[in-house]
Formats: sequence, C-alpha cells, structure tokens
Amino acid sequence: MQGQSQQQAYDRGITIFSPDGRLYQVEYAREAVKRGTASVGVRAENGVVLAADKRARSPLMEPESIEKLHKADDHVGVASAGHVADARQLIDFARRQAQVNRLRYGEPVGIETLTKNITDHIQQYTQVGGARPFGVALIVGGIEDGEPRLFETDPSGTPYEWQALSIGSDRSDLRDYLEEEYEEGLSTEEALGLALDTLAQSNDGELAPDGVGVATITVDDDDGYSERSNEEIEAILEERDLLASEEDEEADAEDGDDADEADDEE
Amino acid sequence: MQGQSQQQAYDRGITIFSPDGRLYQVEYAREAVKRGTASVGVRAENGVVLAADKRARSPLMEPESIEKLHKADDHVGVASAGHVADARQLIDFARRQAQVNRLRYGEPVGIETLTKNITDHIQQYTQVGGARPFGVALIVGGIEDGEPRLFETDPSGTPYEWQALSIGSDRSDLRDYLEEEYEEGLSTEEALGLALDTLAQSNDGELAPDGVGVATITVDDDDGYSERSNEEIEAILEERDLLASEEDEEADAEDGDDADEADDEE
Amino acid sequence: MQGQSQQQAYDRGITIFSPDGRLYQVEYAREAVKRGTASVGVRAENGVVLAADKRARSPLMEPESIEKLHKADDHVGVASAGHVADARQLIDFARRQAQVNRLRYGEPVGIETLTKNITDHIQQYTQVGGARPFGVALIVGGIEDGEPRLFETDPSGTPYEWQALSIGSDRSDLRDYLEEEYEEGLSTEEALGLALDTLAQSNDGELAPDGVGVATITVDDDDGYSERSNEEIEAILEERDLLASEEDEEADAEDGDDADEADDEE
Amino acid sequence: MQGQSQQQAYDRGITIFSPDGRLYQVEYAREAVKRGTASVGVRAENGVVLAADKRARSPLMEPESIEKLHKADDHVGVASAGHVADARQLIDFARRQAQVNRLRYGEPVGIETLTKNITDHIQQYTQVGGARPFGVALIVGGIEDGEPRLFETDPSGTPYEWQALSIGSDRSDLRDYLEEEYEEGLSTEEALGLALDTLAQSNDGELAPDGVGVATITVDDDDGYSERSNEEIEAILEERDLLASEEDEEADAEDGDDADEADDEE
Amino acid sequence: MQGQSQQQAYDRGITIFSPDGRLYQVEYAREAVKRGTASVGVRAENGVVLAADKRARSPLMEPESIEKLHKADDHVGVASAGHVADARQLIDFARRQAQVNRLRYGEPVGIETLTKNITDHIQQYTQVGGARPFGVALIVGGIEDGEPRLFETDPSGTPYEWQALSIGSDRSDLRDYLEEEYEEGLSTEEALGLALDTLAQSNDGELAPDGVGVATITVDDDDGYSERSNEEIEAILEERDLLASEEDEEADAEDGDDADEADDEE
Amino acid sequence: MQGQSQQQAYDRGITIFSPDGRLYQVEYAREAVKRGTASVGVRAENGVVLAADKRARSPLMEPESIEKLHKADDHVGVASAGHVADARQLIDFARRQAQVNRLRYGEPVGIETLTKNITDHIQQYTQVGGARPFGVALIVGGIEDGEPRLFETDPSGTPYEWQALSIGSDRSDLRDYLEEEYEEGLSTEEALGLALDTLAQSNDGELAPDGVGVATITVDDDDGYSERSNEEIEAILEERDLLASEEDEEADAEDGDDADEADDEE
Amino acid sequence: MQGQSQQQAYDRGITIFSPDGRLYQVEYAREAVKRGTASVGVRAENGVVLAADKRARSPLMEPESIEKLHKADDHVGVASAGHVADARQLIDFARRQAQVNRLRYGEPVGIETLTKNITDHIQQYTQVGGARPFGVALIVGGIEDGEPRLFETDPSGTPYEWQALSIGSDRSDLRDYLEEEYEEGLSTEEALGLALDTLAQSNDGELAPDGVGVATITVDDDDGYSERSNEEIEAILEERDLLASEEDEEADAEDGDDADEADDEE
Repeated sequence: MQGQSQQQAYDRGITIFSPDGRLYQVEYAREAVKRGTASVGVRAENGVVLAADKRARSPLMEPESIEKLHKADDHVGVASAGHVADARQLIDFARRQAQVNRLRYGEPVGIETLTKNITDHIQQYTQVGGARPFGVALIVGGIEDGEPRLFETDPSGTPYEWQALSIGSDRSDLRDYLEEEYEEGLSTEEALGLALDTLAQSNDGELAPDGVGVATITVDDDDGYSERSNEEIEAILEERDLLASEEDEEADAEDGDDADEADDEE
Repeated sequence: MQGQSQQQAYDRGITIFSPDGRLYQVEYAREAVKRGTASVGVRAENGVVLAADKRARSPLMEPESIEKLHKADDHVGVASAGHVADARQLIDFARRQAQVNRLRYGEPVGIETLTKNITDHIQQYTQVGGARPFGVALIVGGIEDGEPRLFETDPSGTPYEWQALSIGSDRSDLRDYLEEEYEEGLSTEEALGLALDTLAQSNDGELAPDGVGVATITVDDDDGYSERSNEEIEAILEERDLLASEEDEEADAEDGDDADEADDEE
Repeated sequence: MQGQSQQQAYDRGITIFSPDGRLYQVEYAREAVKRGTASVGVRAENGVVLAADKRARSPLMEPESIEKLHKADDHVGVASAGHVADARQLIDFARRQAQVNRLRYGEPVGIETLTKNITDHIQQYTQVGGARPFGVALIVGGIEDGEPRLFETDPSGTPYEWQALSIGSDRSDLRDYLEEEYEEGLSTEEALGLALDTLAQSNDGELAPDGVGVATITVDDDDGYSERSNEEIEAILEERDLLASEEDEEADAEDGDDADEADDEE
Repeated sequence: MQGQSQQQAYDRGITIFSPDGRLYQVEYAREAVKRGTASVGVRAENGVVLAADKRARSPLMEPESIEKLHKADDHVGVASAGHVADARQLIDFARRQAQVNRLRYGEPVGIETLTKNITDHIQQYTQVGGARPFGVALIVGGIEDGEPRLFETDPSGTPYEWQALSIGSDRSDLRDYLEEEYEEGLSTEEALGLALDTLAQSNDGELAPDGVGVATITVDDDDGYSERSNEEIEAILEERDLLASEEDEEADAEDGDDADEADDEE
Repeated sequence: MQGQSQQQAYDRGITIFSPDGRLYQVEYAREAVKRGTASVGVRAENGVVLAADKRARSPLMEPESIEKLHKADDHVGVASAGHVADARQLIDFARRQAQVNRLRYGEPVGIETLTKNITDHIQQYTQVGGARPFGVALIVGGIEDGEPRLFETDPSGTPYEWQALSIGSDRSDLRDYLEEEYEEGLSTEEALGLALDTLAQSNDGELAPDGVGVATITVDDDDGYSERSNEEIEAILEERDLLASEEDEEADAEDGDDADEADDEE
Repeated sequence: MQGQSQQQAYDRGITIFSPDGRLYQVEYAREAVKRGTASVGVRAENGVVLAADKRARSPLMEPESIEKLHKADDHVGVASAGHVADARQLIDFARRQAQVNRLRYGEPVGIETLTKNITDHIQQYTQVGGARPFGVALIVGGIEDGEPRLFETDPSGTPYEWQALSIGSDRSDLRDYLEEEYEEGLSTEEALGLALDTLAQSNDGELAPDGVGVATITVDDDDGYSERSNEEIEAILEERDLLASEEDEEADAEDGDDADEADDEE
Repeated sequence: MQGQSQQQAYDRGITIFSPDGRLYQVEYAREAVKRGTASVGVRAENGVVLAADKRARSPLMEPESIEKLHKADDHVGVASAGHVADARQLIDFARRQAQVNRLRYGEPVGIETLTKNITDHIQQYTQVGGARPFGVALIVGGIEDGEPRLFETDPSGTPYEWQALSIGSDRSDLRDYLEEEYEEGLSTEEALGLALDTLAQSNDGELAPDGVGVATITVDDDDGYSERSNEEIEAILEERDLLASEEDEEADAEDGDDADEADDEE
C-alpha cells in the first residue's frame, strides 16, 4: 500500500530517480515494450536473422503495414517491439546516421557504432526534461568488416551485443528457449529455423505465414538485407511443422478485437 | 477505486508512461475519436472509396461545412473522425507535404510516404511536452503507381494499411460488418455501396443524402479525387434501400440538440 | 461526487484530454461564451444580417462602446459573444488576415478562407501549452463571389456554415426559434426582422433601440458592411412591435448592477 | 464548502477557465482594484474631469507622491485605482503608445485608439502564461477631434466608454450617485463639482484639499491636461461645503496605520 | 484554520492574486523587510539624513561590512532594510541608472526619476513568473535642482515621497515617533539628531557608535553624499544622551547569536 | 512515518535542498550506482589497474558488450558503476575533453584536470533544473607527468583522489578489504592481483574469466592503456585460486534472470 | 505539526518567500554548509590565515584531493565548507573574475570587490527560478593595497568582513572560541596557531597533520598565497600540543564509514 503511493510520486513530471535509484519512467517504458509482440534475432556463421511476430488485428489489415522489420542500410536490419510510432522515430534516426556515415567516411557504418548512436539518442530522452523516454526496444543486426553482429537497444539507452535474443512479450520464455537451443556456427538457414521455432513458443507452437516477418543480412549476398516472401516463409513453416491452420489464424484475429483499445504496440 | 486514483496520476501534465506501459493521454485522445461520427474507407480494384457520416446538428447548418472528407492532393483523399479542429491541422500538414513533394521530386507523393509523414508528425505530439496529442484519426486513401492504397493514422502516430476500415463511433461493429462483407476485386461502385451499407449500420440502417459524404479516388479518372453530389448519393441510397424518410431526418436533428454542449467532434 | 473530483484533475495546467476524450478547458471556454449576451446571424437572398444584444450595464455607459459588431473588411462583418477582450484579439487577427489577402492576391479574402484562418488560430490555443483557449464565439458573415456566406467559430476552433444561427446566452432557445421561423430566400429586411425577433426572445419580447446593434453586409451595396443607426433600429422595432418602454429599459440597467462583478462577457 | 475547494483549484498557476467559464485570476485582480481608493471621471460639454481620492497614510507622506492622476499626453489624462506599481506600467505603456503615434502619423493619438492599445496589452496578461493580470483599472480621458471622450479599462482588458464613471472602492455606491446626478451638457466646472461630490460620498461627505487630486482636459485650453493646485481645490471644496475639518483629516491618517501592511493599493 | 489552508494555496509557484486581491509573495517579501534592522530617513531644510541600525552579530565582524547605507551617486544616498543580497542588486541597478543618466543627458539623475526606475524594476519581479520579488525596502534620498528629496521603495514596486520615514523592524513605532517629533525647516544637524533619536527607540533608547551608520546628502556641500565617522557619531550620541554603555553592546552581540541561523536580513 | 512523507516532498521536480541540507535526487542517483556491479581501481608503483565485474545476464550475451572499462585517451582509462547509458555520456564527454586538450595544448590532458572537467559537468546536472543527475560513478586512472593517478567521480560532482578504491555494489565491504590489503609500492601485477582479490569478495571468492574485465595504464608501456585478454585473466585467476567452476557461472547467469526487469545498471 | 506541513509548502519548486519572510531553500542550503567540516579564517597584522578540517573518509584517500583550500589568485585564498561540487563552481567563478580584473585594469582584484562579485553571483541563484541555491559558504582572504582583508560569503549571497571567523560544522562553538581568544595585531604565526587551536575545538582538541590544511596570504611575501606542508603542520601541531595519536586518526577514518552515504559535503 505504501509502496503504491510512494511509487506514484515518481510518475509525474520528468524522469527522476526514485529513492532506490530507479528511473520509473524508463521502467514503465519497458512495460510498453512487453506489450508489443515478440521479435527474435539470431547470429549465424555468415549472417544475421531477424524474425518478428506480425499478427494482424483484423483480416482486413495489410500484414505488410505492420512495421516490425526495417532496413536501416544495405547491410543493417532492425527488428522492433513496443510502441510502433516510437520505433519509427528511432529507425529514421538510424537511417540518417547510416547515410551521414557513408557521406562522411565513404564506407558503411559499423553495427556497433550505429547501435551506440541510437542508444545515446535514447539516453537523452531519459535525462533531459520535457519529453518521455522511447517505449520501444530494437534488435540491430548487420555485417561489419565481414562479420555478423547482433545488438539490442532498450528504453534506458543501454547497448548490448548478443548471439541470439528476443524482445517484446514473453521475453523470458523465449530467451530460455534460445539459451537451450542456440549453438555457435549455425548456417543462416539453421538460424532462421531457430528464430521461427522461438517465435512459435509464444503462439502455441504455430505460426501463420503472413503473421510472421523474416529478414536476413548475410555476408555473402550482394544485397545484404533481404526479407523473405510469404511463400518462402510458408514453405519453411511447413517444413518445420509450425504452420498454423486457417481456423487458428482467424480465431487469433478475432481475439485481437478485445485489445483494440490500445493497439499501438506491436 | 484504487485503479481510479492511480489513473488520475497520469492525466496531468505531459504525456508520460503509466506503470503498465500505456500513454493515457494518447488513449484519451482515442476516446475523442470515438466521440466523432463514423467514417469508412474501402479499397476497390481500381480505386478507393471514402464515406463519412455528416449528420448536421441543426437543419440550419450547411452540411457541406461539416468537414469529414478532404482532398489532400489530386490523387489523395482523407476522411477524418474525432476533434474537427485537430483534423484541420493534420489535413493542412498533409497538403503542405504533398505540395513539397511535387516541388522537390516533380511527382505526386506516395500514399504510404504521405501517411508516414503524418504519423511521424502525430508522434511528436505524444513524446515531447508542451502540447497534447491530436484527438483525431484519419483514413488516407489514394493512388500510388496506379494502385489504390488505403491507410489509417491514429492518435499514437501508428500507420496501418487496410483493405477496408472504419474510424470513429461504433468502430468495432462497423469493422465486424466490413470483415464479413468485404471481398477483394470490388468495382468502385460496389465498394461505394459497401461503404454506405457499413455507415448505415450505425444509423438504424438508413442514411439521409445530405447527412452523408462520399468521395472516390480512382485509377482511371483524370481528376483522381472527386466527391459525389447529393443527388448521386440519394440515387444510390434509394437503390440500396438505405434512404431515410424525411421525418427520421428531422428527429435526428432534434436529438442532436442535447449533444450541443460538446459539438466539436464529428 | 467522484465525477466532481475527477473533473478537477483536468482543470489545472494546460489543455489536456479527460478519460472520456473531452478537453475541459475548451468546454469551460464555451461556458464563457454562454455568459455573454446573444448575437444572431441570418443569411438573406442577397446579404447577411448580424444583430447583437448590447444592453449597457448603466445608463452612463456609451452603448457604442459595447463591442459586439465589428467590420473586419469592406465585405465582412463579425458578431461576437463571450469574453470581450478575447473577441478583440480575434477581430484584430481577422482584420490583419483580410489585409494580407488583399495585398498578396489583390482581391478580397473569401469568407470561408477567413473563417478557417481564424479557427486554425483558435485551435493552436487548445493544443499547445502556455496559454488558455479563447473564451469567445464569433459569427462571421460576408459576401464571397457575389454570394452571402455565414459562418460560426467556437472555442474549439471548429468552423461551421449556417443559414441562420445564434451564439451566446439562451443559444438553444434562440436556435429553436430560428429553426421554426427561418426560410430560404428572405430579403435583407425580412432577415433583419427575423434577427430582431429572435434576439427579443431572450428579452421578454422587447428590445431598446440603443440596447441592440444591427449590421448588414449586402451583395448590391457598394460599401458592403454597414451598421444601422439608432433611429433606423427604433423604427424597425416599433414596426415589429418589439420596442421596449422606457421603464423597462431602466429596470434592465438596474438589474445589471448585480452582474457588475463579472462584467467582461457580452 | 465545496465551492471553496473547487475555487482553490483555479487559483494556482496560469490564468485558466473555471467550469462556469470565469477567469478567477482576472476576478481576483478586480478585487485588487476595489482595495484601491476611488477615482472618478466626468465628461463635460467641452472637456473631461478626473478626480481621485489621494488620502495619505501618514501626515509625513508627500501627497503629491500618491500617484492616481497621470498625464499620458498633452490631450490625455489617466486616473487609476488599484495596485499602484501595476498602474505605473500601464501609464508608461500609454505614454509610449502616444509618442509612437505622434512620430508615425504626426498627430495626437485618438482616445479610443489609445484605450484599446492599453486593453489589448492587458488582455495578453490574461491569456498567455508566465505572468499575472494587471491589478488595476484606469479611467482614460481626453480630447479627440475636438470632442471630449472618457474610457475605462479593467483587468480583463475590456474597454468601455462612459459619460461618467468611478473605479476603485465603493464603486457601486459612487456609480449610483453619478447615475442620479449626472446630466449631459455640464460645463467643466460643474463636472468638476460633480466629481468631487461623488468622491465625497465615500468619505462621509467631506474631503481634505491635499487628500484629493483633480485634473481637467479641456477642448479650449492650449495645454489640454492640467491639474488643479491645492488652493484651487480647497476653494472649490469650501464652496461646495465638502471641506473636511483638520481633526477629521488627522483621524483619517491615524486610521490609515492599520492598513499599513498592504499599502500598495491606492 | 480555513484561512490557513487557503493562504497556503497562494504561496507556491509564481506571484498570483488571492481571492481578496492580494499578492501574497509581495506581502511575504514585506515580512522579510520587517526582519531587517531599522533605517531612518529625515528631510532637512538643506539636505537629507539617512541613519541605519548596523548592530553586528559578533564583535569580530567588521561593522563597515554591514551594508545598510550606500552612495548611489554623488548626490544620492540609499538606506536599506531587509534581505541584504537583494538590496545589493537594487543598489547596483540604481548606480547603473544614475551613470546612464549622466552619460545620456550630461546631468545628475533626478531623485524621483531614479526612484521610479527602481520601483519599475521591482514591479517586474512581482508580475512576470520565474523569479521571486525583492525582499527589501529602500530609502532613496538626494538633492534634485537644489532641493532635498526623500523617497521610499517597497517590495510591491510602489514609490512614495516622505518628509521623514523609517523602514525595517519596529516600523510602526518609529513612524509614530517621527510623526510626533518631526517639524519642517530642520537644519541638517537637527534632522540627524532626530534620526538617531528615532533609531534609538527600537534599542532601549541607546545606540553604540559602531552599531549605527549615518549619511547626509546636503545642498551646500560640494561632495553631496558623505558618511559620518564613528568618532563623529559617538560625539553626537553622547551629546544627545543616547550612547550605549560597553556592557550593553556586548550583551547585544551575544543575543545576536541566537539569530545566527537567519542572518541575511539587516 | 513522518520522515517518509517529508522525504517524498523532495523527490518531485528539480533537484532542491531538503530541510537538513541534502539533495535527495543526488542521493537517489547514488543508489543507482549501488545497483551496478562493482569496479575496482588500484594505484601501483608504475601504473594504475582497473578491474570490473562484468557478469552477463545470459550466456548468449557477448561479455565484451558489457561496458564497464573504457579507454578515454592513450594514457587514461575509466571504470564505471551504475546506469550504463549515463556512463556512456560521461565517457564521451571525457574523450572530447581529452581531444580538445591535445589540440589546444599539444599534450595529453592531466588526469586531475580531466576528472575535474567531468565533475564540473556532473555538478551542473545537480543544480540547474530540467534534467536529472547522472546515475553513475567513475574511476578515472592514468599517467600524468610519469606518475600514476587514480580519481573517483560521484553523482554529486565531487572529485577525490585514491590509492585504491571500489565503486558500485558492496562498496563498503570492498573498501574495507582494500584498506586492509593495500600497501604502497605495489608492482602493476601485484596491484592487478589485489584488484581481482577485491572483486572476488563480492562473488563468493570466485570469478569467471569472461565475467571480469581488467585494464592497466602503465608508465613504461608505449601504448599506455591496454586491456587483458580472457586467457590472460583466466591464467591470473587460476594462479590466485579465484577461478570459478563452470557450474557456478551458469548458475549466476540464471540468477540474473530475476533481475531482468531493471537491467540497465552494471 | 502545523508548522511542519506549512514548511513543506515552501520546499518545492523555486525559491520563494514563506509567510514570515524567509527563503527556505536558502536556509536549507545553510544546513548543507553545516554538514561540511569546519574552516577557519584569522586576520593577522600582516596577512591572513586559512585553516581547514580535511579529515579523509578512508586512509586510502589522498588528503590533498579533499578540496577545502583554494588559491583564487596570487594574493587571494579561499576556504570552503559545505557541498564540495558547488564550492568548485564558485572558486572557478572567482578565478575568472580575478583574471578578468587583471586583464581589464592591469592590477590585482580587490578582496572586497571579488567577494561581492561572488555574492552577487550567489544571489541570482536565490531569486531567479530554474536552479537551486549554492550549498556552500566561503572564507575569502587576501591582501588589498597592502592590507589583509577577510570576508565571508553565505548561501543567501550576503558578504561580511571579519577579523576572524569559522564556517561549517560547530560554527557557533568555534566562533565563541575565536571571540574569546582573538586579539588584534597578531603575527601571522600567532594567527596560524589560533586557527589550529580553534579547529581542534571540534576534534577533541587534537588534529592529524594530513587531516588539516593551512594556507597563508601575507603582505611581505612575494608569492602571496602559500600552503603549508604536512611536515610544517605536524611541527606546529606538536608545538601546540594538538597532535593526534595514530590510533585516534584511524578511529576517525573508520567512523567516517557511516557517513559514507552522504559524503559530498566537506
């Protein structure tokens, strides 16, 4: 009860420290991330795989318009979870940073450099008054000097590098699954399979082809970032026995109706 | 009771996160949208149809002055629901963006690009202090590279693409209706019929010609955006057996009197 | 009781949304409008008529100094109701906009364009912090391309076009009267009579010549906007049997004493 | 009791509307005006008379330093009531406006124009945050195109023209007296007599020569604004049987001691 | 009790009006003045005398460093009471104004002009947000056109002219004494005696030479402002039988210890 | 209980003093430091050793991406504890300062100078409103004029020089250990051993090679700052009998799961 | 109890007056000064002595890094008590002022001038919003025109000149001691002895050489400001029988552990 009223004191106004040294607005922004559907990133031997849960709230909604996977540059992809509109701001920021780097140094921006540009930008919104923190987490994956790299940004502005990770809803469960199943030296296709297996964990083990997005950024490819078509995804899901039946899919969409009031997290 | 008092804590001052990761000011802005009369958008094979409930509060009010349908550019139409004055700001913003695009690139702005310009603008009002969010949702429809596109913007600044959608009051019911009745490959006239059928759902199945606005943006037409005259609308309503009798219309207007105190949502 | 305390939460600080999507500061500004005496606008065949209740609080006050009717440009008149000082700000704004239009385009500003300039200005004060909304409503009437036009602005910044309308105190009753009595195709003099009849509804059916202001903006006239003299008004009132006896007038003024504390609304 | 707590909610921070459409800060500023001693203005046939209660709090205070009458320009005088320091700001503003007008147009500023310059300035302080309203009312009197004009400004920024008026303490009583006694076509000396008679109403019918200030702005005079000397005032008071005996005057001053805590209103 | 809680509402944030038209922050600033030791000003036939209570809190403190008397220009002296650091700001402001006047017009600034420059500056801090009022009162004395003038500034920004006055602690008692004892036409030395007699009223009728500061600004003198030495003061105190015994002085200093917590008012 | 409610009063808004002269926001920022894992600095005869606890929350996280040791310049290293994103801001600031010094004076920045640049920057965030303090402490170590120097910065902006110190969790215990074990004149390798022994105190006496970071800045070395490889660290840990068994390490990581909610302190 | 809740009202937001005319934020800043260890200043015949309690919180802390004595210019020293980081800001300000004076006028800044520069700077932080007051007091000592001067600045921005004074903890007791023991005409060495005797009063009559700092600024010396070495201090302490035994010193340091939470005052 007391904890309750004390906590309230830190909700108003700008982002300030609580007596135990926490930034509540940042922690609440993390809750906004958890309200979004999951995204998964897996680092393979020669590339990075990003997969995202893109279930639509209605069969009339175009699945492609659910923005969870973004190409930040030829060699960089970003998956997001949380407040969609905030994610767009950070993606735009990342694209501008990547462009500036090409213009200034004549070469693609490093994945670590780009990630830290983003997290430093995020941090400003947690320290200086007059704005709220960003309610979104990002997985930033790409190729740097011929090596795949995979990073995370969170609402506090902290950058971390991972071999494989998930962000968004059911984060803990999906991470447990990844910790058990991940191993080094995966081929890109194996990594892609693991990413989909992981995503399916929070969907009763099944996924609908147009409820999922998959992107790969590979060392060998000329084009770097590429997204898989619905048909390719369907083939893989079938192969891995993850394909949802039509009925399930519709039921999902209808369940989505109840969540309609607060539908700005994905 | 506790939920009540906790919720209050997030209402004051700037837009900040609640402990469960929600932005209350954005959710309240969504309520402002629901207070507005409905608008419907339907994507046809070769065009987009926008229809809006424009019932006047008084028979002395000019129905044309109830702004729910707007031409943003030759090839782009916008339907709104919610706070009228806020909608005007966003339409003005959209028009300027469309003009800038023509000047800078010598070609019409893409519908997706324009929508995301608008949602990025909306997002700023949900993150930076000193202003409240926009209390309005928009349906942005138009032709891009010869293809009809149909988008939604909401008060959080999230863009979504739809085959058919409704915004404003009775949103859930109208969407259910659309999900049941919509099918791909509709002609523009069929889409127009569906849009009016849907609107009529929240009006006891009847519509008055001057209480409804209809606009189409088609691929073939030279002029792109065009609004239907009252006579055309009356003919269609009669054909579809949706035409309201005179008495109903007057009764509606009189009911409107009670809502006079808060008449800035449409 | 709970509604009471909840409502209080939205009164302080800047204009923000309440949980049901309303902007309380805007609604309170509407109350300021209702505290002002009534103004009426009627669109005739070839012109627009504005009439305003200008009862003075004291026989020593010059009735001309009670500002309810304003000439915004040769072809545009404005009647106001509510906070007088706020009205002056908007009238000044309208005059500058009309002048700028003449300078820039070499022609008189359109009535719809001017009205929307004003409402967009009003809207800013309802969304951006650091200022309160305008506590005034305006009737903007004039001639555009040879046609009479009649618009309303309210504290939310919403523009509406009317055939006939009233703003200020007793708004509902006066509108009911107008809805019953108004018909299309009125001559300017008939419209003027209707406007005075309507105003008299909130004055026990009687009006004093110097307690009323009347302005017409007509298509034919060279000068456009013109105000009627006290003598002309007296003649019309007598003709329509609306002329107040001297005693009533004095009684009115004395009643005015009690309202002296908050005398900035007209 | 509830009214009490509700009212408190509107006292803090910037000037905002209360649920019944009032601006409390403006109304409280009016209370500051009432705390000031009275000033009276009377329009005569060929001039304007300003009279002010200037009772000193101590016999050691120089009566001339009690600023209630101000020359704003050769042809404009101003009498004030309320917060003295605020009055000075407005007088300075008025003087600058009058000077600017002379420089720009080569002629004296109109009394109505000048008054509206002042009230527009006052209005800004009631709408834009970061400052409180002015706690003072002014009587602005002068000659415009050979005609005497007499205006009032109040803390809301509303301008009114009067034949005769009073501001400050006992306003209602003094206005009643003026309404009974005033008649059109007074000579300047008759108007001066009426002004002093009125002022004496709030002083047990007596005035001390150095407790009163009198200024006239006349059409005929070359110099326009002129203040009467103590001797002239004493002669008039004696003639009108308003002269206070010495003992009364001292008693007054001693009574003044108690009010010493809040002595910034006059 | 209710007055108590109501009063609290006006203490926070910026300087705003209370329901009875008072500015609490200004009134609280007056309390800061009363917490300061007294200063006295007396206007003589050919000059002005300023005297100030400068009792030190410790015998180790240099009495000269207790700033209560200030030379603002050759012909202007200022005595202060209240918040010392605030007084310094106003004195600096006054000196700059005096210098600017000499540069611009080639002559010494008038005493009334200078005082009103200061009070206008003070007023700004009572109306515009973001700063508190000045917690200090000043006596401004000097020679203008060969005549001695004596003014007061208070925290509201109101200027008053006096024949003789006191500011700071025991203000009412000292003013009563001055009202009884002051008479016009005093020589400078007589005025100096009266000033010291008055100051002694709040010190059990005794003063220590280095606990008192005395300055005169005279018409005849070439240098205008001059402060009396300790020896001169001692001689006068002895002559007037006001000289404190050594023991009293030490006791005073020791009493001062208790007030050590809030020692920034003098 | 009372202390509780009083404390709350100082948590909101900007950094202000409490009645007992404390800055609560600064003290809460210190709590954020304590929530971070420990870092240790030891000054040796010819260099400085920095060691940091870098335990990862998951075996999938790349230990190198846990930023606790930073090279600020060739001759300066920094170890941090607390809010990671804040630390990055200060490190960036330090790097810019070091670069500016080289450009301006042509020589490496002094360690004391650099530290005080940082603490002055930190202080600003504790005095000026609109931002919260930095939630991080730093150990700044380096070589100045051939001598090793070791400094600490804390959230208040106070700089201190140490022979050996720890920051972050278990600070008191680790300092006790250092006070007992430290002696002057240590070789760099001895200092490195002491640093690891100290860190192990808060890890049940055991450390995993990739859960620890070690950097040295030495007088003799050409390159100054260098970090030890995992292999080197493993060898030293084994030699000192501090090497954690594999099982312990995994258990640690799993424990880390619970702390996942607030994982932005290290 | 009521005093308690009333006091709270003045703690939040900017520095404003309380009903009894006090500035609570300034008084709380004084508490921050009292939390710091003591500093003492004594004016001698030909110089000024500054002594400061510099007890370290740990034997591993370098005593030199505890900043209590500062050289502001060749001829000016400053001792501080209170918030260390705030003191640094004021010292930097003082150094810049001293430099500017040398550049502008070609001569060393006067001690009184410099002190008032500092206090005017401090005052700004107590009147203008957006920042808290400085939580530190300074003793400013130096040579001006061949004469030793000794000043104090406090958090209100008031300057005072002293013969001898102490600031920080135990201020009253140390001042009592100084008042008893100080006499004019001391040699610099005698003054130094008195300063150390005084400091020892708040340390059970004993001081450790590296827990004390001593600086002198003398008229004769070429270099003006000089600090005594530990050896010199040890010799003097021994001579005056003030030397602490080793055990006491360690005990002190251990006691210091408890105060570790709020260690930014010295």
